[in-house]
Amino acid sequence: MDRNVYLTLQNPETARNIWFNRIAQLTDGPGTENLPLEEAAHRVLAEPVEALRSSPAFHGAAMDGIAVRAEDTFSASTKRPLSLDVGKNAFWINTGQPLPAGCNAVIMVENLNVIDGGKRVVTETAAFPWQHVRKLGEDIVATEILLTPGVEIGAYELGALAAAGVLHPTVFQKAKVAIIPTGSEIVSLHQANDEDLRSGHVLPEFNSLVLSACIRDAGGAAEVYPIAPDDPEAISKAVTAAVTACADLVVIIAGSSAGSHDHTAEVVRGMGEVLVHGISVMPGKPTMLGTVTTAGRSVPIMGVPGYPVSALVAVEEFLLPLLASWQRRAPKTRESIDVIPCNPLPSRPGMEERIRVRLGMVNDTCFAVSLPRGAGTVTSLSRADAIISVPRDSEGLDAGKPVKAQLLRTRDQIAGALLAIGSHDNTLEYIDSLLRRTHPRFSLTSAHVGSLGGLLALQRGQCHLAGSHLLDEETGVYNRSAIQEHLKGVPVMLVHLVDREQGFVVMPGNPKNVHGVRDLCREDVRFINRQRGSGTRVLLDYELKKQNLVATNIRGYREEEYTHMNVAAAILSGRADTGLAVRAAAVALGLDFIPLGMEEYDLVIPLAFAEDERILGLLDVIRSEEFRHRVRNMGGYEVSRSGEVLWEYDGK
Amino acid sequence: MDRNVYLTLQNPETARNIWFNRIAQLTDGPGTENLPLEEAAHRVLAEPVEALRSSPAFHGAAMDGIAVRAEDTFSASTKRPLSLDVGKNAFWINTGQPLPAGCNAVIMVENLNVIDGGKRVVTETAAFPWQHVRKLGEDIVATEILLTPGVEIGAYELGALAAAGVLHPTVFQKAKVAIIPTGSEIVSLHQANDEDLRSGHVLPEFNSLVLSACIRDAGGAAEVYPIAPDDPEAISKAVTAAVTACADLVVIIAGSSAGSHDHTAEVVRGMGEVLVHGISVMPGKPTMLGTVTTAGRSVPIMGVPGYPVSALVAVEEFLLPLLASWQRRAPKTRESIDVIPCNPLPSRPGMEERIRVRLGMVNDTCFAVSLPRGAGTVTSLSRADAIISVPRDSEGLDAGKPVKAQLLRTRDQIAGALLAIGSHDNTLEYIDSLLRRTHPRFSLTSAHVGSLGGLLALQRGQCHLAGSHLLDEETGVYNRSAIQEHLKGVPVMLVHLVDREQGFVVMPGNPKNVHGVRDLCREDVRFINRQRGSGTRVLLDYELKKQNLVATNIRGYREEEYTHMNVAAAILSGRADTGLAVRAAAVALGLDFIPLGMEEYDLVIPLAFAEDERILGLLDVIRSEEFRHRVRNMGGYEVSRSGEVLWEYDGK
Repeated sequence: MDRNVYLTLQNPETARNIWFNRIAQLTDGPGTENLPLEEAAHRVLAEPVEALRSSPAFHGAAMDGIAVRAEDTFSASTKRPLSLDVGKNAFWINTGQPLPAGCNAVIMVENLNVIDGGKRVVTETAAFPWQHVRKLGEDIVATEILLTPGVEIGAYELGALAAAGVLHPTVFQKAKVAIIPTGSEIVSLHQANDEDLRSGHVLPEFNSLVLSACIRDAGGAAEVYPIAPDDPEAISKAVTAAVTACADLVVIIAGSSAGSHDHTAEVVRGMGEVLVHGISVMPGKPTMLGTVTTAGRSVPIMGVPGYPVSALVAVEEFLLPLLASWQRRAPKTRESIDVIPCNPLPSRPGMEERIRVRLGMVNDTCFAVSLPRGAGTVTSLSRADAIISVPRDSEGLDAGKPVKAQLLRTRDQIAGALLAIGSHDNTLEYIDSLLRRTHPRFSLTSAHVGSLGGLLALQRGQCHLAGSHLLDEETGVYNRSAIQEHLKGVPVMLVHLVDREQGFVVMPGNPKNVHGVRDLCREDVRFINRQRGSGTRVLLDYELKKQNLVATNIRGYREEEYTHMNVAAAILSGRADTGLAVRAAAVALGLDFIPLGMEEYDLVIPLAFAEDERILGLLDVIRSEEFRHRVRNMGGYEVSRSGEVLWEYDGK
Repeated sequence: MDRNVYLTLQNPETARNIWFNRIAQLTDGPGTENLPLEEAAHRVLAEPVEALRSSPAFHGAAMDGIAVRAEDTFSASTKRPLSLDVGKNAFWINTGQPLPAGCNAVIMVENLNVIDGGKRVVTETAAFPWQHVRKLGEDIVATEILLTPGVEIGAYELGALAAAGVLHPTVFQKAKVAIIPTGSEIVSLHQANDEDLRSGHVLPEFNSLVLSACIRDAGGAAEVYPIAPDDPEAISKAVTAAVTACADLVVIIAGSSAGSHDHTAEVVRGMGEVLVHGISVMPGKPTMLGTVTTAGRSVPIMGVPGYPVSALVAVEEFLLPLLASWQRRAPKTRESIDVIPCNPLPSRPGMEERIRVRLGMVNDTCFAVSLPRGAGTVTSLSRADAIISVPRDSEGLDAGKPVKAQLLRTRDQIAGALLAIGSHDNTLEYIDSLLRRTHPRFSLTSAHVGSLGGLLALQRGQCHLAGSHLLDEETGVYNRSAIQEHLKGVPVMLVHLVDREQGFVVMPGNPKNVHGVRDLCREDVRFINRQRGSGTRVLLDYELKKQNLVATNIRGYREEEYTHMNVAAAILSGRADTGLAVRAAAVALGLDFIPLGMEEYDLVIPLAFAEDERILGLLDVIRSEEFRHRVRNMGGYEVSRSGEVLWEYDGK
């Protein structure tokens, strides 16, 4: 096979320096333009701004009252009130109006008596010179430097510019970024129909949408070109078209790797130079940086990987800093805070790994739960609260040891989030939704590690609550014995969330005739299991034991999924014939459901948080009519006791 | 005089509650709409978003290689390599392509040997099931809740929505905010000419520009109506027009106070109800909150003060939180940090005072220097790094005691700023400009308290450097004796910045014939002085002493300005006939200048910061050709020795 090769993998900083230095030899980036203030918001100043007018432009009244010459009033006192003639040496004036010639002070209307039918006013206090006067140039003196280059024009800057008479400030033109999506199997987002997508023969293109939004937010102008097939000539033509159309920068999406169908590096080598091919960061490794010269112009070009998370890493690491440097300002950085990983974060040495995590502040300590790492896992972008970087020279980070995380949310948002670690249930996302609506500062972040994992996290003080449905095989009672076993020293309350129907998810029509656990042992039935420690797994093992069945006889017993929905998806895709899950999961995907029985799903909440306002908000939500209504509509749930405190455990 | 009265002054939280509760009875705010993703950036989700598609939509290859049935490979080992037939039980596959039917694993191309002219491949390792496969629904399972209401759609959310097939999410419509500027003397920004402005008979209207930008940034749609004169009927008509045009909210700018020309409250009382008139916050006190019912609709209305800073406080305190609540999200909050005020911050009891400050991190302590507080001081908005609130029950805050400040900049921006406290010189703003350009992470913040004030701030460790031009009257040498007197224990270097010409600023043609300090004692000459502790004042006193003149004979000796430019502005406006300042100030305003002599202006920098990269950047700037070139063009400066280290003081 004919394969490209990466150049040496570069760390991002070196890669940036190599690329930026070469670019600086070729271009200063976009030019400048003068825009009316009405169009200047969020643009970046290109030059120091000198005030063209002084502000105020005259001596004006700062209060409503009368304008006077201060010296005329020096004799006034409580004992000897002074009367002044309106229109002669006292002049009514409103806030903002210019002082009449000769006046240098204002006496507030509240401190005056009007006599003689308004012809005269009396004051008992002397005015000092320039009392209640806004003096010419008090705020801005013409020619002073008001704002510096690199400053983004926000609302406040608009005010300062307007006050100083700078009505057409000089700003940087927006960098024109041409985005060329590539890939023969790629179709535009709105052209993809569900059937084609499920066959896998087409893939919807949305990287261009995401990258355009990033580029616009960074002050650039993104233009998306038609999708080019995996053909070097077609890609070259698109690049030439973009450069001809005055693009300041070209981005080729996908094909930046070193596979046989990856043409970006080859195209760039043919039109200019590849400076960096491959960076030592995951996700993001297959990034290509170079320049091309065509149509009489030399412009920077980058190849970004086709996987959405990698593409974003590449753009945030290289493209956005380039836009910032063209605007003579520092790239936006994320705030860094100390967090404690709840789980170990293994990493490949030689590569810096960026791991997206969810965060929760528990008793002033910020805990992090990692999200799936796949470069294609788009939800890891929208769900992440922060990013932890595992350095190149490390084999990973240990659970429980503080590390730095770069925040993607505000500290307030993190502080308002309840962290639930434990079993997954579909109602948790509804709770989050309703909680945010009724208490906009609060939210519910949930991480799914199974019921037992949740209790262990509570024991370690790493979360605010845990969802659990652990059946005691001896007593048939849920959660209490597990709590007594694992939460010694942690007084908790057991709050009922829902009863839910567990059963076998099967294809419509139940083609394999699955009717009970006994059928799982059949040769022709492929099963998909849940992970160890999950309540659903405990339920299965309980049922197997009751019927004296042996787990090793079940095909697929060792294949594990982490959520009900993923079990259902495995059935839908034909990966397995059946698996145990809640009814809602089957209903959601249009699959059939063979009930096994109702089980209890509860929330375990430390008493230490019983009065926490976020917990109170959460309890309000799960006791609300709207919650019950929504959950009933999901199917397979019983919610009449939702929010009931079933039991308090004193930790002893 | 016919005067309105305020209702009881309300604190902002109470005022917000009163207004919001009433509004909630009248309206839920704007409705919702479905937008294509291409137009959805920065909009706010109105409903929980359920995934419409699973992602991935099929089992696909996560690596380039061959797709196999894992079970077929279980026998492979280094000792017994396994060969597979391409097209039969091994299928070439590229990343992202769907697995052929029956396959459940991918072996990477790097781990294969191709033999028999490509007909067969050999592997030495077994594949485990689902190895290098992105499984259907691994990221998103259709029907899962993906995003919650109140979430703003950023680039990441666009990706998640697109991947989940949600191509037309339901978002809140933008709130339509009608802005009605009022005031008979007000003209639109572009209509104001300099002469009219200087006469004070017209005032340029730019509050609407600033408020529109705030509203747009908060996700609203601002529409600015024509300026209404100070006439209740005209204002009522404008309100009715706005409500008829479906405004969700009306803002009347200016006239919200309780003066005779203030009609907002009266208009609102006539059309609906005034709920709050007057808040216990400075600036911002004359804020009016109410509702109006007209044209068959009831909408909230607010009257904001005409002074720019007050108007912004009112909008940030009431309007933006209302927009947030309509979008079911928490209002944006500012991060709060501990700062130490360098100067006392007196305040009026009974009013909460919001003081804008500049910040500098000196040795891990954040120091705050207050900006001018006037409600019309627009530059206090653009210059401020943070806001300190002095509570209602306080008479002010002491210098040196930690208080909370709400950040207006990022922590990185604060960390990159050098704080200079001391004498003012016009070149400082150029240094800031050049420093930001050459070192985008750095900036220079300067606060002007005079030379002596700067040395005292250095002694207290409150700044990174001080500009100083203190003449020793005995020796005629600048700064050294003052440093020895005031900086015991603080080793510093004295870096020359500029020599600058000091002299008398006079009106063009020098109508009062001022030629030296002796002329200041003339009966017909009104002088404007600089504040005590400023180098310019020391210079004046030195000259007076040399000539045996008495300060008390000078008219205006006690009137003080804080900068050279303000002295020049005082001359220009006719407030005084002359004052002492640098030539650049006179040149800037087109005034004449009678030289008194050259003086030395230096920077005093603690040796502890000598290697600080911000200081090194600053020294680079003042030694650069561009700095010298720019400063020479300002007039009255000598820069040949700029950046020279004149002297090191060991603190003993």
